[in-house]
Amino acid sequence: MVESWSFLDTVESNFRPLVVIELAKGTKEETIEWFTKRIVDKKANGGAQLLIKPLVTENGVENIYLVGASHLRLLLGAETVGLVKECNDNSMRTFTYSSRKTFKHFADDNHNFLTMAECQYIIKHELENLRAKNEKMIPGYPQAKLYPGKSIVRRLLTSGILVQIFPLHDREELKKLSHSWYGRVKVGYQPLDDIRCYFGETIALYFGFLEYFTFALIPMAVIGIPYYVFAWEDYDKYVMFATFNLLWSTVILEVWKRICAILTYRWGTLLMKRQFEEPRPGFHGVLGINPVTGREEPVYSSIKRQLRIYLVSLPFVCLCLYFSLYVMMIYFDLEQWALDYHRENESNLSSLMLYVPSIIYAVVIEIMNRIYRYAAEFLTSWENHRLESSYQNHLILKVLVFNFLNCFASLFYIAFVLFDMKLLRQSLATLLITSQILNQFVESLLPYWLQKRYNRRMKKHMCSKKTDMDLSLAEQVNIEKEMGTYLGTFDDYLELFLQFGYVSLFSCVYPLAAVFAVLNNITEIYSDALKMCRVYKRPFAEPTANIGVWQLAFETMSVISVVTNCILIGMSPEVDALFPDSKMDLVLTVALVEHLLLAIKFIMAFVIPDKPRDIQMKLAKLEFESLEALKQQVRAFQMQLHFLLIHH
Amino acid sequence: MVESWSFLDTVESNFRPLVVIELAKGTKEETIEWFTKRIVDKKANGGAQLLIKPLVTENGVENIYLVGASHLRLLLGAETVGLVKECNDNSMRTFTYSSRKTFKHFADDNHNFLTMAECQYIIKHELENLRAKNEKMIPGYPQAKLYPGKSIVRRLLTSGILVQIFPLHDREELKKLSHSWYGRVKVGYQPLDDIRCYFGETIALYFGFLEYFTFALIPMAVIGIPYYVFAWEDYDKYVMFATFNLLWSTVILEVWKRICAILTYRWGTLLMKRQFEEPRPGFHGVLGINPVTGREEPVYSSIKRQLRIYLVSLPFVCLCLYFSLYVMMIYFDLEQWALDYHRENESNLSSLMLYVPSIIYAVVIEIMNRIYRYAAEFLTSWENHRLESSYQNHLILKVLVFNFLNCFASLFYIAFVLFDMKLLRQSLATLLITSQILNQFVESLLPYWLQKRYNRRMKKHMCSKKTDMDLSLAEQVNIEKEMGTYLGTFDDYLELFLQFGYVSLFSCVYPLAAVFAVLNNITEIYSDALKMCRVYKRPFAEPTANIGVWQLAFETMSVISVVTNCILIGMSPEVDALFPDSKMDLVLTVALVEHLLLAIKFIMAFVIPDKPRDIQMKLAKLEFESLEALKQQVRAFQMQLHFLLIHH
Repeated sequence: MVESWSFLDTVESNFRPLVVIELAKGTKEETIEWFTKRIVDKKANGGAQLLIKPLVTENGVENIYLVGASHLRLLLGAETVGLVKECNDNSMRTFTYSSRKTFKHFADDNHNFLTMAECQYIIKHELENLRAKNEKMIPGYPQAKLYPGKSIVRRLLTSGILVQIFPLHDREELKKLSHSWYGRVKVGYQPLDDIRCYFGETIALYFGFLEYFTFALIPMAVIGIPYYVFAWEDYDKYVMFATFNLLWSTVILEVWKRICAILTYRWGTLLMKRQFEEPRPGFHGVLGINPVTGREEPVYSSIKRQLRIYLVSLPFVCLCLYFSLYVMMIYFDLEQWALDYHRENESNLSSLMLYVPSIIYAVVIEIMNRIYRYAAEFLTSWENHRLESSYQNHLILKVLVFNFLNCFASLFYIAFVLFDMKLLRQSLATLLITSQILNQFVESLLPYWLQKRYNRRMKKHMCSKKTDMDLSLAEQVNIEKEMGTYLGTFDDYLELFLQFGYVSLFSCVYPLAAVFAVLNNITEIYSDALKMCRVYKRPFAEPTANIGVWQLAFETMSVISVVTNCILIGMSPEVDALFPDSKMDLVLTVALVEHLLLAIKFIMAFVIPDKPRDIQMKLAKLEFESLEALKQQVRAFQMQLHFLLIHH
Repeated sequence: MVESWSFLDTVESNFRPLVVIELAKGTKEETIEWFTKRIVDKKANGGAQLLIKPLVTENGVENIYLVGASHLRLLLGAETVGLVKECNDNSMRTFTYSSRKTFKHFADDNHNFLTMAECQYIIKHELENLRAKNEKMIPGYPQAKLYPGKSIVRRLLTSGILVQIFPLHDREELKKLSHSWYGRVKVGYQPLDDIRCYFGETIALYFGFLEYFTFALIPMAVIGIPYYVFAWEDYDKYVMFATFNLLWSTVILEVWKRICAILTYRWGTLLMKRQFEEPRPGFHGVLGINPVTGREEPVYSSIKRQLRIYLVSLPFVCLCLYFSLYVMMIYFDLEQWALDYHRENESNLSSLMLYVPSIIYAVVIEIMNRIYRYAAEFLTSWENHRLESSYQNHLILKVLVFNFLNCFASLFYIAFVLFDMKLLRQSLATLLITSQILNQFVESLLPYWLQKRYNRRMKKHMCSKKTDMDLSLAEQVNIEKEMGTYLGTFDDYLELFLQFGYVSLFSCVYPLAAVFAVLNNITEIYSDALKMCRVYKRPFAEPTANIGVWQLAFETMSVISVVTNCILIGMSPEVDALFPDSKMDLVLTVALVEHLLLAIKFIMAFVIPDKPRDIQMKLAKLEFESLEALKQQVRAFQMQLHFLLIHH
């Protein structure tokens, strides 16, 4: 055991590069020296105790550094970040170095006990927690201020000295993963556990949700097809379809929670304790005392932030919403114009022309969504939120409200103001299909093509005809550092959310929507997989226990869809004909059915447990054990004290 | 310090009785000997290490025992149950013996550091956790089986050897408390902190809620009075009143959560860790292995329980509901008969007769509620739930559903089937007032009168003319052991819940309901206080952090009241007159308003934080500190290991 601890004083010989640090060109020598010294310095001296090596290319040293760590350092880091791993008795437990022998697959020489993604996460965590001691500024850059406890890496990033930190791809693993993921045509599940090992839990959970959601849509799609094929337009069939849809969408969202619990229990993140949240990198303010930690750090008045939110952000969002509605009215003018044109010169061409306004509008919606996205990011960042979670919540709220209105306002207008079911169906179909095609193109194919072109040029530049596998480390790093950065699962979830809206809000008018959604999602799985593996830099793994605010967003959408579907059914002429004498009775019946459905929804959500029984039992067992351990500790302490006192 | 630990070997001289144990008459000597030995035995030998003394009265030893504990034993027990106390720096922390010096008001000779209620709670906890070692049965009672780990006290209770365990009143404290609580006529708040010190958190929180709820009703009452005085019947005033009511009821329920957090933070229960739940006393089954704890204990098949629930309890509840509706129809027949009688012989007497059916019905409702309550308890206990929480949830669900229907079905019928607003108002007023009067009588005055009579007879029996304060301990115990047992806050919350229903469900028809509710609650505070102090045995304190399932029940009621009020307003002739052309528009408008109100309700519930900002900060600070402490521990351990290895 003494040997295994020798790393604390010497550097190991088998250095495995895990993370790349790119410093700005022309960074001063003294800064580099100080920074690298802090990285390799002992924990006891406030260092990160990692290994670092400059990358040597043909052109000499390029301010790119490779960071690694000894096996033992990583194990201690795993304890620090609170990783949860599987034990020999198949239970999941928080890893500690002292109990390491009880964990499955642990051996002192098994360097695969931690996955590469976990190692990279640990290194990222250690780098970010490398904190200033007494330095008042970054050596060589007097304008980059530091204060005790400030994360050095974050300051280096905000002052532009540090260009980026990213984890390296593992070419071999990636090849295996991409082969089993999208490399061959197959019917079956995605290799979620492998994805999690390579990309971490957040991304694996997104793909898990995408897959689950696609499977869950299949019953809707299957039931929707005969409506199209046999042109069923009877009210009772619609009522059946809509009722099924509403209850089904509740069930799938509840069941997802259970599946999510199963996945994240297996991955250990369900049990992982939340780490204390540090201020986000972009946060700035005057130095003050944080009331929670008692540390000196930047403080920004909450009132100022509220003012920015209510006096600038809120009016801006309202303006954008108004603009979106304005564009919608233009679309209706166009639609009217196309209809008039079709009536005057009736031909095949003119009937095709009928779809043109919808397509143009769909494209405009997508463009507006993207522009607004940037504006929302800028504004939310300007609001200067202290915590990343608060920033994310404000951003998601802004984006969701706008996207919801932007995408669905025209459909609501057509349905409940114009009462034009034919136009609604046509508009819904065009919007759904156009937006799906655009998304696939912009999100995956375009970046893939750009990346391909860049890679080709790069290789030509290096005058080599090697395949990917033969690339030297230097070449690999050079290619990867130019790749785009994956900005998180936000856009992917947003796309699914809007798709869920198209499918569920007006499901009884256009039962075929689910079919298109399923088809889109199957290709989406492949194109997203391609994007993750080939287009973007490898992202850092992020442990997560659930899909967070998106669960709430999807549930809200399913509540709104109960209301819209009930109204649509009530408006259909077939239902209308059932109440020839009194429109009153019709409306009252619809209202009653709506309330019943909502009540059933809430009761179902309440009755279906969020976690499967066996996971509940396992969690209860763990809780019991930790309580027992605490009791034992207290008892042992009391006994010990007693013993000492008697023998005193 | 050595002195203070001496209790571990000797019994302290200053014995303060805290808890009374009453064994059945004729309990065998060997049983008593074994039981008392286990109670005083050292912790290390599996005992409770408490102090016990038989109560000696004039008639000799009566199988009544007094239990106490040394000051130090109580402090160690406080650590075991996880009490949270205030520190010198005003923060709340979990008490540990080793950190005792950092707590406010702590001194080795201050025996008031723990309140008497806390001491009694600790003793109760220690007694209940006195577990069988190798005993196969209770000595002397072969039919009372034991197995390792079974709580001895619970087995003694279920086998009837132990009649009861109850905490002693503190005559002096009680006198002080009752004086400041209800002894003088005053305008002001209840002494909640004193109530908490004497009766524990659950009861103090009930009185806190009762007081808060009463204050919250005052604005409704104040606004309601002019409606009665000026006989306002304009629709716009009703709409305003109902809208105010709906939003107000949401606000008060949200604000209560915040106040509850403030109270329970101050009392330390907000931070108290949940203890692992043991099987409830009445639970039985065949011995098996508990999958969570791995211990041998009774196991009862979940399927059998489900069968009992769905095949017996559910049909029984449905039958009761049917019976309740049947009784309601009889009431309407009576009502019709009274009306006919009034029409035939119009007089003052006959117009009074109009109220008789409602009053009879109100009395019948109360009686049915009480009978059903027993049936529900019997059934739920027969369902054999393993945990007290699961038992409580099933009981509350059964009782709430029945009471809701039983109390409000007639009102719903009058409002939405008969459309008779005058009868609704009259029926609502009679039901509300009759049930309030009945409740006050049955719950407080009747037991108080019985108790008074018993006490008088008792004193006469003892042939003494002493006042309460002069009673000997033996006399006090003898009086208290015959007092009724307070069965928890269930009935009190239920009463408030039904009152909230009367006030909110049909608020726009009878704005005066809030006035009666306020008047009732003011007297309720006094009569409940009297009941707690004078009628019942002192109950054991129960730490709790919130009012639990009642929060959900009240919120559900406020959602239902949005629906009923919107319909009532829509049905009023004044609103009707606004839409002369189309009833459709009326219904649509009502539905739209209802949905808007519901949406506002949910957004408000979402936006108002459940905990005030300063409590959030304090909790964040504690979390931060515990995370820091853990980090320090890990670091210290790693350093220590390193040190040892280097010097090896």
